[in-house]
Amino acid sequence: MSGDRIDVLDQGFVHLDGVLADDLSVVNAARVSFGTRRDEMDERDAGLVRFLMRERHGTPYEHNMFRFHVKCPLFVAREWQRHRIGSYNERSARYSEMPDEFCVPAREDVRTQVGRPGAYSFEPVDDDTAAYARDAIEASYRQAYGTYRALLDRGIAKEVARSVLPVGLYTEFFWSVNARSLMHFVSLRAHPSAQLEIRRYAEAVEILFARHMPVTHEAFVAGGRVAP
Amino acid sequence: MSGDRIDVLDQGFVHLDGVLADDLSVVNAARVSFGTRRDEMDERDAGLVRFLMRERHGTPYEHNMFRFHVKCPLFVAREWQRHRIGSYNERSARYSEMPDEFCVPAREDVRTQVGRPGAYSFEPVDDDTAAYARDAIEASYRQAYGTYRALLDRGIAKEVARSVLPVGLYTEFFWSVNARSLMHFVSLRAHPSAQLEIRRYAEAVEILFARHMPVTHEAFVAGGRVAP
Amino acid sequence: MSGDRIDVLDQGFVHLDGVLADDLSVVNAARVSFGTRRDEMDERDAGLVRFLMRERHGTPYEHNMFRFHVKCPLFVAREWQRHRIGSYNERSARYSEMPDEFCVPAREDVRTQVGRPGAYSFEPVDDDTAAYARDAIEASYRQAYGTYRALLDRGIAKEVARSVLPVGLYTEFFWSVNARSLMHFVSLRAHPSAQLEIRRYAEAVEILFARHMPVTHEAFVAGGRVAP
Amino acid sequence: MSGDRIDVLDQGFVHLDGVLADDLSVVNAARVSFGTRRDEMDERDAGLVRFLMRERHGTPYEHNMFRFHVKCPLFVAREWQRHRIGSYNERSARYSEMPDEFCVPAREDVRTQVGRPGAYSFEPVDDDTAAYARDAIEASYRQAYGTYRALLDRGIAKEVARSVLPVGLYTEFFWSVNARSLMHFVSLRAHPSAQLEIRRYAEAVEILFARHMPVTHEAFVAGGRVAP
Repeated sequence: MSGDRIDVLDQGFVHLDGVLADDLSVVNAARVSFGTRRDEMDERDAGLVRFLMRERHGTPYEHNMFRFHVKCPLFVAREWQRHRIGSYNERSARYSEMPDEFCVPAREDVRTQVGRPGAYSFEPVDDDTAAYARDAIEASYRQAYGTYRALLDRGIAKEVARSVLPVGLYTEFFWSVNARSLMHFVSLRAHPSAQLEIRRYAEAVEILFARHMPVTHEAFVAGGRVAP
Repeated sequence: MSGDRIDVLDQGFVHLDGVLADDLSVVNAARVSFGTRRDEMDERDAGLVRFLMRERHGTPYEHNMFRFHVKCPLFVAREWQRHRIGSYNERSARYSEMPDEFCVPAREDVRTQVGRPGAYSFEPVDDDTAAYARDAIEASYRQAYGTYRALLDRGIAKEVARSVLPVGLYTEFFWSVNARSLMHFVSLRAHPSAQLEIRRYAEAVEILFARHMPVTHEAFVAGGRVAP
Repeated sequence: MSGDRIDVLDQGFVHLDGVLADDLSVVNAARVSFGTRRDEMDERDAGLVRFLMRERHGTPYEHNMFRFHVKCPLFVAREWQRHRIGSYNERSARYSEMPDEFCVPAREDVRTQVGRPGAYSFEPVDDDTAAYARDAIEASYRQAYGTYRALLDRGIAKEVARSVLPVGLYTEFFWSVNARSLMHFVSLRAHPSAQLEIRRYAEAVEILFARHMPVTHEAFVAGGRVAP
Repeated sequence: MSGDRIDVLDQGFVHLDGVLADDLSVVNAARVSFGTRRDEMDERDAGLVRFLMRERHGTPYEHNMFRFHVKCPLFVAREWQRHRIGSYNERSARYSEMPDEFCVPAREDVRTQVGRPGAYSFEPVDDDTAAYARDAIEASYRQAYGTYRALLDRGIAKEVARSVLPVGLYTEFFWSVNARSLMHFVSLRAHPSAQLEIRRYAEAVEILFARHMPVTHEAFVAGGRVAP
């Protein structure tokens, strides 16, 4: 794991492939309102960042960009790509043969759901059930991937054969996003009500974000991780 | 199939659930530039619609809305939801148990892929291969759904059990979109280079669109189905 | 003033030109998560609308559309059009000659600004100052419009002559927007920190919105007018 | 004029304040479809960039960012900010006193409009008319700014006093945008049918864009400056 890459789940990762972002860009975007400009941050500027967050002035947080390379299961990618303010390019199962890579939950991540709509929570299962679930999931993946390979071997088009591939399959994509939209993503997807698996990705995104915009991140956390 | 609903593939559909759209809204949005307004269309107004399309003035086509209820396989929904100018709400496999509904390609839709990246095309396969593929796909679906049910029966959370569900599974969602974004969707997804299955959905969308905005649709077709 | 039109300032208005919106569309967009659907609202559905607002689930509020015809001063239009989730077509001063219509503040709206950046407030001025200001503003408009007309009379292009027109000039435009983006607009522009003039427009927008989506509006107000 | 700043009109400029952009990002965003990646461009990659442009695959052009600092007249800013895919922060005439800076057209830019709606063109005027227009415009600016200052001196709030300021006034703003949206801006605003003044800005934007993404720019020009 290099400095810009964080491993997530059994085979996934979040890699910061490119970045143009600092806290100063927030300050200068806000200060243009007054026709002024700073070359470096001081404590008053940090106060301005906190003020903007508190007052929900969102636009000054948009003048930057994070480009991530992400590898995650399809069921995570589906939630991720519902976020519309940002750019995506993803591996295509029409154009390329998908490798045999599937997400099997770690023993401690096998869980049961309790509660009612609007107030679900999750609890661990006993060891036997966890082992049973992991085995059943893996066996199902193996069977599906075997069918996929067999269909390809018979000459069936990749885009048809892929119908049998499960949503536990790993995919990869590029995601370019500004800090405002990134914070919105984190506020929803690192939230306790989000699914555990995307939460791990959102936490990785947040760590990489915090490294480049520490004052902004601190203000975001202080405000309860609600995006401006 | 009622007037506003078109069946697609073996179990899917496109249903126009709500609509506020006519050609006159295009004309009046354009005429506001001049401070004028029309109560009904005449031939000069139809000419204006064609002029705007040809000159790629896109904004007058945005003052309307189509709300579709769609049922389609996950692999179609994934391509669909990459279109960011529009609104989505989809069935959740975290909150609801998914029914046993999967897309099996019709005999004539089983195909092989020929050509090279950037210039693929597809050809039908012989009857034996088609039968083999359909059987293999169905068997794989059956196995995966059996595992899904077994996991639920052991108390595993729906959001974990769904990992094994294949992308041939049917989902449903609402999609609200304006005519400009709709035309962009049709231009890409009813295009010969799009995957056959989403093409069928895009054609259904286009039919429902044409009913409500016939002059706009005609201008769109005349311009080679390139969105303004 | 008809039912769908509200006069604002001295010569402006907000007119609801077309609408496809009700509270039920929120409920059904949310219920599609569970694969269920309602034909009319009951108290449980109203509770769902409130729950979604509180938990900041924004997407179910997007499956509707309000098309407004607005007449307002340029300085209001400039703030308005910074809202990017929505569609605009506006009168063009390149293509049409602008009429002699300018916003003169009512006596009680002439104000002075006190306080410091981040915490401004406004107070009324005495009658003499108000009268002075109104006269000076009107005289300046008259002079500018006279120059505009003289330039047109000499054959100067409208797009050049308009340079002298002040931002108090009235313009008109169509604005199509969904309820989620509309609530965001109201949360910022009907806020006490917004400029008085756009606040009056935002209040008119809110009234027309509340008529069509009363349950949603009530939940929005209960939550402190923070958009989901 | 430094390398990253281009002067435009009598007092304006376009300054590239920050950039994260190269042609390689286009190639890698496209190649992720196949699960491959390049560290530097070769001739095949340049061909891929041209192919994507020709086939109107727009998303690979989005994984980059240009942050511009712009100074331009209000009537240019109004057209500019109708482009919704991008981020803006602008000088505020509510919070800051606007300086005495207005756009007076150069002698050769004073023009008359001929032709009809949909087919306007512009022609130069004779020297006397040009001199008359420049004098009249300047005098009108001087009078308006005098009124503005007098209102401020009487204690009228800046947000009220600004009503008399003409749209020839200079403003400044930050604009952050990706290459796809930038090309769309250039396709419309550097087009012969756009107003001369914004055309000059769009040409400056295009020059700065071409420096950082020369292969993409060349493909854009070869395709007739139609954005993908």
